[in-house]
Amino acid sequence: MHIFYTPDITQNTYTLNEEESKHCVRVLRLTVGSIVNLVDGNGGFYTAEITSDNPKKVTLAILKVETEFHKRNHYLHIAVAPTKNIDRLEWFLEKATELGIDEITPIITDRSERRVVKEDRLNKVITSAVKQSIKAYHPKLNDAISFDAFLKEPFEGEKLIAHCIDQGEKQFISKLVSPYQKYLILIGPEGDFTPEEVNLALNKGFKALTLGDNRLRTETAALAVCFEINYLNR
Amino acid sequence: MHIFYTPDITQNTYTLNEEESKHCVRVLRLTVGSIVNLVDGNGGFYTAEITSDNPKKVTLAILKVETEFHKRNHYLHIAVAPTKNIDRLEWFLEKATELGIDEITPIITDRSERRVVKEDRLNKVITSAVKQSIKAYHPKLNDAISFDAFLKEPFEGEKLIAHCIDQGEKQFISKLVSPYQKYLILIGPEGDFTPEEVNLALNKGFKALTLGDNRLRTETAALAVCFEINYLNR
Repeated sequence: MHIFYTPDITQNTYTLNEEESKHCVRVLRLTVGSIVNLVDGNGGFYTAEITSDNPKKVTLAILKVETEFHKRNHYLHIAVAPTKNIDRLEWFLEKATELGIDEITPIITDRSERRVVKEDRLNKVITSAVKQSIKAYHPKLNDAISFDAFLKEPFEGEKLIAHCIDQGEKQFISKLVSPYQKYLILIGPEGDFTPEEVNLALNKGFKALTLGDNRLRTETAALAVCFEINYLNR
Repeated sequence: MHIFYTPDITQNTYTLNEEESKHCVRVLRLTVGSIVNLVDGNGGFYTAEITSDNPKKVTLAILKVETEFHKRNHYLHIAVAPTKNIDRLEWFLEKATELGIDEITPIITDRSERRVVKEDRLNKVITSAVKQSIKAYHPKLNDAISFDAFLKEPFEGEKLIAHCIDQGEKQFISKLVSPYQKYLILIGPEGDFTPEEVNLALNKGFKALTLGDNRLRTETAALAVCFEINYLNR
């Protein structure tokens, strides 16, 4: 199955851009009459036929449209401090996209060593995982934002924070949330959140979660949370 | 906390090898009297004091020994086809070590593009994750073995296989196994197991599992299985 990501599709025909046209004809060696699939990132899954295999401008005729393709039964937003080594965040984005996630926000915290991320590059990682794992919905990546500013934004749903500070009660996610909800979960940097940041979140109505005894890296904790929320919503 | 991996520890003193001595003195800048921790990979967690900070030969006096440190309540053996891009297998080994795994066997299947792995290098990845996540038990990495030969080896416990072939009944792991057991789970290569390999496993008493609708990469499927088994054994 050959998948193309076509967020701007509006009609019953579509023209691939030059890069994808080249990939389609030169790499995949597809020709007129070949069947491909398109995802628009918004739940649309299309079956299309190649009507012109011009390597600079491949045109497609849409044969079939499915909407709300594999629509998720919950909404997961993970706000995670970017890892010092950006590869680790990119791994998380790829894996979370495969397992199922709806929104990601890079948050810059007090102890964040990395304070800048290239959203374009991170979005490419997500898009590539969307195509590879055949997702009709494209996870939304927000611009990086400071922890304090992020907590000022409204969120309707279950709000959790993962931290390693030996302070206050923590519970497993399964004890804190019910299925089929909207979830927002905060994951700290390598050096963890500061006690002040944790208190700020708790005062904003976030509940503290535990992932067990394991000492997990930032991206592993974020992926563990992603797995657990999806597991609870099966 | 500074952790050193010391599988050969036998007495109440220990001498770090040249590489670790150098790391200890030149990088960590530790001196006589500094307290460090040692893990022997077999459940032993040691607290030790530096008695000589010779950068070629650091000597330690063991102050305290804890055995069966964070002993796991189940045994998880994952046999996985090495990924074409070895980074993906290394990423799995690191993450599985953080989350909890006991034994890994690289299996060479019919459709494996990669038929050779460097166990030494993979073991270094595991050891590094053992230290980073403070594990007193070192997961066992077996030499790569052919799928057929592996299935001939005896295993007492719950046996599962993950495959994407649209054949036969599949169930979630939670429906197939009970907690606190020994588990052996097979994960196929990028191109999946062949129907013959799946049948061979089923005839050997393996049960087919599903991880849900997501199309997961080999290393993601292996990690999802690791998450799920640990989750069921909390």
